Amino acid sequence: MKTQVAIIGAGPAGLLLGHLLRAEGIEVVVIERAAPDYVLGRIRAGVLERTTTDLMDRLGLGARMHAEGLPHDGFHLADGERLIRIDIEALTGKKVMVYGQTEVTRDLMEAAPERGLEIIYEAGDVALHAVDSDAPYVTYSKDGVTYRIDAQFACGCDGFHGPSRKAVPASVAKAYEKVYPFGWLGILADVPPCHHELIYANHDRGFALASMRSESRSRYYVQVPLDEKIEEWPDDRLWDELATRLGPEAAANMTRGPALEKSIAPLRSFVFEPMRHGRLMLAGDSAHIVPPTGAKGLNLAASDVHYLSEALIGYFKRGDADAVAGYSDKALARVWKSERFSWQLTKLMHRFPDGDAFDRRMQVAELDYIASSLAAQTTIAENYVGLPL
Amino acid sequence: MKTQVAIIGAGPAGLLLGHLLRAEGIEVVVIERAAPDYVLGRIRAGVLERTTTDLMDRLGLGARMHAEGLPHDGFHLADGERLIRIDIEALTGKKVMVYGQTEVTRDLMEAAPERGLEIIYEAGDVALHAVDSDAPYVTYSKDGVTYRIDAQFACGCDGFHGPSRKAVPASVAKAYEKVYPFGWLGILADVPPCHHELIYANHDRGFALASMRSESRSRYYVQVPLDEKIEEWPDDRLWDELATRLGPEAAANMTRGPALEKSIAPLRSFVFEPMRHGRLMLAGDSAHIVPPTGAKGLNLAASDVHYLSEALIGYFKRGDADAVAGYSDKALARVWKSERFSWQLTKLMHRFPDGDAFDRRMQVAELDYIASSLAAQTTIAENYVGLPL
Repeated sequence: MKTQVAIIGAGPAGLLLGHLLRAEGIEVVVIERAAPDYVLGRIRAGVLERTTTDLMDRLGLGARMHAEGLPHDGFHLADGERLIRIDIEALTGKKVMVYGQTEVTRDLMEAAPERGLEIIYEAGDVALHAVDSDAPYVTYSKDGVTYRIDAQFACGCDGFHGPSRKAVPASVAKAYEKVYPFGWLGILADVPPCHHELIYANHDRGFALASMRSESRSRYYVQVPLDEKIEEWPDDRLWDELATRLGPEAAANMTRGPALEKSIAPLRSFVFEPMRHGRLMLAGDSAHIVPPTGAKGLNLAASDVHYLSEALIGYFKRGDADAVAGYSDKALARVWKSERFSWQLTKLMHRFPDGDAFDRRMQVAELDYIASSLAAQTTIAENYVGLPL
Repeated sequence: MKTQVAIIGAGPAGLLLGHLLRAEGIEVVVIERAAPDYVLGRIRAGVLERTTTDLMDRLGLGARMHAEGLPHDGFHLADGERLIRIDIEALTGKKVMVYGQTEVTRDLMEAAPERGLEIIYEAGDVALHAVDSDAPYVTYSKDGVTYRIDAQFACGCDGFHGPSRKAVPASVAKAYEKVYPFGWLGILADVPPCHHELIYANHDRGFALASMRSESRSRYYVQVPLDEKIEEWPDDRLWDELATRLGPEAAANMTRGPALEKSIAPLRSFVFEPMRHGRLMLAGDSAHIVPPTGAKGLNLAASDVHYLSEALIGYFKRGDADAVAGYSDKALARVWKSERFSWQLTKLMHRFPDGDAFDRRMQVAELDYIASSLAAQTTIAENYVGLPL
């Protein structure tokens, strides 16, 4: 098979990119290792920057998001007692949208057939070839047969564990990484949220987050040691811990319910440079990971895709090779800023096992300072809604 | 001897406090371990917040400061190439004043006789007694004789190594400390500054600071390992290193000259709680130390003295014991915020021996973010000119 752009991965990054290119008449094939139900079963972040919702709107695929999503004009930082409100709308003129990544993926997936976006699911053994030539190609196997797709560009939207990043030779690449000494234990439950806005709490006992997917579905997290066993956290213990860490106001309004899903995820900061090698372009988690504090993962994938779609549209529509050449630097400039924000908010809001009493007082002092300074609140708000593209 | 307030230490904190109390007719004796020349020989910070200059003006002792000091309305952060200007006047409506701590001390010292502020120099073996009773007293020896001063309050303005803090029983105290894994090698030289504003640089090779005392006297620093020997830094090597770390613009305008003074100082964050125990009140370095990045040490001493003078004036003029009781909490709230700023700026601008490539990229990303965000510049500017009292 021949196409103009082969996209590896049908998560939100690959699907967004596919739709943006298809909207300009560019030939695209998306190759996905898993089945559609598996892709939709992954539970991920749920706070969309304006940058991300704008892309959905530009594609004309934002209707359900606007109908079912919850626009938020603020969120809270907490220290176990106090709630410090960050009024993102007053400080930046923008809102964020609470709408699950799963829902974004579903909207993009369901619109694929009508937009002529071809997605090959359950493609095994995906491999990239000749990416530093003018004729890269991708192979995969399905039902015992090996297929080959010749393309002008291969786009790696296949996440942290996918094959795309590994196709960049180590000799030209550099990876930066920070692994955090704790994880997030998450619970999803069909109960109303304890607050209509998100609460990020740094309690003496550790971090907690009160989040939501809708007005009837809540998502909560607590910081736990990396080696924690999920069996040690029956629902009751988890609700008790959330009530303690989130503080009295949240606890008073918290509705408990059985866990629909409960899991522990590690936290990592990771950046891979460059994001382009020859005709291979990386976007989203294949090139970088942020800790979930601040919900930048999906949004950063969306901004990569914005830059990448501009570059490829420039190439195919105007023969502009410079845009392709400049993609990595352009995307990385924003990546590093989002990495910085996610790292900073993670450091501010978590208890570090090697932290001493001075470190703890610095966190409290920073929360006090934020509570007292509009400028400090603005730096958080402008990062939270998304820095300019 | 009997007095109302015994002040230990004739540095800027003790002298400022003495003058503020004398201006209200309160009886004060200042007891200083060293001779006047020794006190004036100590080379310290040179950037005064508006809070500090306001106190000098309130005392009517700001004339020489305004005549000889240099008002600065901005300073720079640098990364070895770029200068990022923080326009503190545009961002906060305030300026800072470049005027050496030595000069502040001299102005306060010289005004002491005419204001009836008694200072006992060269007082040895200073000791505090009965500070948790209503009748504290201070003893010292001079010329082989032991003296006793009975007072209603003892104020410890005697720095990090003085006896006052040690008079607070360990059972009621808590100390917080962070020692940094590097020092500052400083040089003072009678050469014009390389820039009319200060430059704080984080170069790949480490931190450097271009500062000044006047238009013809410069003060520079470079970060060095803690175990560095001063003999390893002949003047030429130091000037070369400064030129590299401060970047091409500063290097091009740098005038070299022989060192008037050259020394290595360690960096420390330290806070002692509480700042009051019974009738003993601590102010300045006796209760807290900040790393010099951001020049908060003297200014924090001045804000302590502001709160402490208000408390003591309230007590002696209106019989207000609550003001005395509330001093520690009031002073500490601002202390922790200044500690936070000094720690943050120190972390942003220095190379840490245990830092990895990711940490370095976070510093670069933060400088990039600061360069691009007025809100981020404002947080730095508002801390630099001094948070509200």
